[in-house]
Amino acid sequence: MTDLPDTNLTMLTLVKPEGQLEVSFARRPMPEPKPHEVLVKVLATPINPSDLGLLFGGADMTTARASTRDGLPLITADIPSAGMRAMGGRVGDALAIGNEGCGTVVAAGSSPEAQALLGKTVALLGGEMYAEYRCLPVQMVMPLPDGTAPADGASCFVNPLTSLAFTETMKAEGHSAIVHTAAASNLGQMLVKICAKDGIPLVNIVRSDAQVEILKTIGAQHIVNSSADDFQDQLTAAIVETGATLGFDAIGGGKLAGQMLAAMEVAAVKRMTTYSRYGSDTLKQVYIYGALDLGPTVLNRSFGLTWSVSGFLLTPFMQKAGMETVGSMRKRVVDELTTTFKSHYSHEISLTDALSLDIAQAYNAKRTGEKYLIKPHG
Amino acid sequence: MTDLPDTNLTMLTLVKPEGQLEVSFARRPMPEPKPHEVLVKVLATPINPSDLGLLFGGADMTTARASTRDGLPLITADIPSAGMRAMGGRVGDALAIGNEGCGTVVAAGSSPEAQALLGKTVALLGGEMYAEYRCLPVQMVMPLPDGTAPADGASCFVNPLTSLAFTETMKAEGHSAIVHTAAASNLGQMLVKICAKDGIPLVNIVRSDAQVEILKTIGAQHIVNSSADDFQDQLTAAIVETGATLGFDAIGGGKLAGQMLAAMEVAAVKRMTTYSRYGSDTLKQVYIYGALDLGPTVLNRSFGLTWSVSGFLLTPFMQKAGMETVGSMRKRVVDELTTTFKSHYSHEISLTDALSLDIAQAYNAKRTGEKYLIKPHG
Repeated sequence: MTDLPDTNLTMLTLVKPEGQLEVSFARRPMPEPKPHEVLVKVLATPINPSDLGLLFGGADMTTARASTRDGLPLITADIPSAGMRAMGGRVGDALAIGNEGCGTVVAAGSSPEAQALLGKTVALLGGEMYAEYRCLPVQMVMPLPDGTAPADGASCFVNPLTSLAFTETMKAEGHSAIVHTAAASNLGQMLVKICAKDGIPLVNIVRSDAQVEILKTIGAQHIVNSSADDFQDQLTAAIVETGATLGFDAIGGGKLAGQMLAAMEVAAVKRMTTYSRYGSDTLKQVYIYGALDLGPTVLNRSFGLTWSVSGFLLTPFMQKAGMETVGSMRKRVVDELTTTFKSHYSHEISLTDALSLDIAQAYNAKRTGEKYLIKPHG
Repeated sequence: MTDLPDTNLTMLTLVKPEGQLEVSFARRPMPEPKPHEVLVKVLATPINPSDLGLLFGGADMTTARASTRDGLPLITADIPSAGMRAMGGRVGDALAIGNEGCGTVVAAGSSPEAQALLGKTVALLGGEMYAEYRCLPVQMVMPLPDGTAPADGASCFVNPLTSLAFTETMKAEGHSAIVHTAAASNLGQMLVKICAKDGIPLVNIVRSDAQVEILKTIGAQHIVNSSADDFQDQLTAAIVETGATLGFDAIGGGKLAGQMLAAMEVAAVKRMTTYSRYGSDTLKQVYIYGALDLGPTVLNRSFGLTWSVSGFLLTPFMQKAGMETVGSMRKRVVDELTTTFKSHYSHEISLTDALSLDIAQAYNAKRTGEKYLIKPHG
């Protein structure tokens, strides 16, 4: 434990009972690894939409204001009553943030498994990554090849495993093609590459011509722009061609999930030989896995009675999929880290930068093509 | 085949390519049963919401007008373009209507199975019941005890099997209590009786105080009125008490499905010991099995990510459930026909009455507590 500082700068998010959110830094004592743990110096950790959910939660960020405490930045914002209801379970608990990251093992517990990791570059899962150091059981770290750049190893879990979970779900539930929204995102680009490699037809829905170009550049075959006047017709044509009956939607709010089901139904009815008042008997499934639009999901039920719209979350998927499937998913991520699963960051910032109000508002806008990477040690 | 007329008065619904719906009668040739078929004199057949879907489909019934042809009533209505799109598969085909009914076997094919049914009172499934006679394979008829009144045997399938399908689905998918909407309907009252008998906690959602009284009369325990100011609180309290994580919704449109999920989530979070930004990991499922409100389903996603809203249809359920389950469901219906599965009809009408415009508009309004029974032979 020589050469290590006594304290570990850690970002914390706190919901106060009077309806205020406070995101700040604390200097916590440096953790000491137990026999089966390793202490990792966090070199890179991404800001994912799922992190923002915990970081700023139900607060009204138009009310956010900056201040400092002990020379460190601090952001405060008001929480409307709906937000307080949703976050009732976390009032008064200062929570550390950051789902995943990459770093170097700088200290290890006494067990051989922990000792074997000393000095290695590892990917980390398990929360509390927006800190200078993170202490974790060895099962929560994944060794990366020597020489892996921290930026390449920082996003090994959330996006790579989620995009692989989409194709695994497709196989497990008997579908043969996929529709994906917000398809120009980092995750969307990974999915394009996975599907191309695995021969899975993929319909990519994006919101702008610029995003169409991004996907063309990486070789996506079916791209439809939801801002086009003939969007529904284009979507239907692409779904007729691919036979997709499974969708993954990162948007959540608005009519998009229902539009996907409607297009799938038109395609399914085309394949039917006799009329049924109940529509096709082909199961049409859309999973909502994100909430880029926090507004209500609006389903115009013009797609028969054989459909389902469900929430999708990685952790329960992995629990259901089992050790073997998850093991091979993880192996594929490491094998294809700098190709299929390469992440692109538009901004690299320091840990304290992350609570600079201007920067925070920028990454909280979740603009496609913008992705932030925190480098706690520069 | 002595004593039988030459023709069989049959109701038909036709979508014309120019965007008109025409519901009329035809005198079709009297069918002659093949070896494995029986000819049944239809004595009673109900008008279910699922029949109305085929009968008037996507037509704008505010434009409906009455006329006659060959001395028989006829209803015509305009179909808006959205309706034409949805019904593209049936344009130009005059379709017979009526899902189920009850009658007497008046002629039988040569097979022993068919001959054994001669003179019996039977329940019928298989469409085309809005007619004087119906010819069907023996597997599509179910013998009823001698002396069963036609009104008691007319609704043996749709409502009884659907309500039993709800409790079977509950068991198959690992839930332990149910929430049901439009709960004062015939189907809803059957579900109250099934759940009481089987010890299944049931939360009944109704829309008026009058419906609350109907359900109190038959002993329902948890009744919440969606028109009350504190509906969401009442619903949540009932779901906390029963632990329901499964809902069946006959309404379809509006916010109700989402309100059920939100109440289930509050109850599930109460049972959690640690906060999760993703909400509870309890699966909350709502099945939409009707469309009393044809408007869009609006989900305010305040219920975490472990949820599903799906269409529900009896036939695919039965295919999945298998012969044995369906056999025991059918047996229970016959055994409890005049108790648990007793249907109540507010109006009995003749076959030609059913196309009297005033009467048609009345039953097409689908008012809770009103249910029409057609008696083709008076």
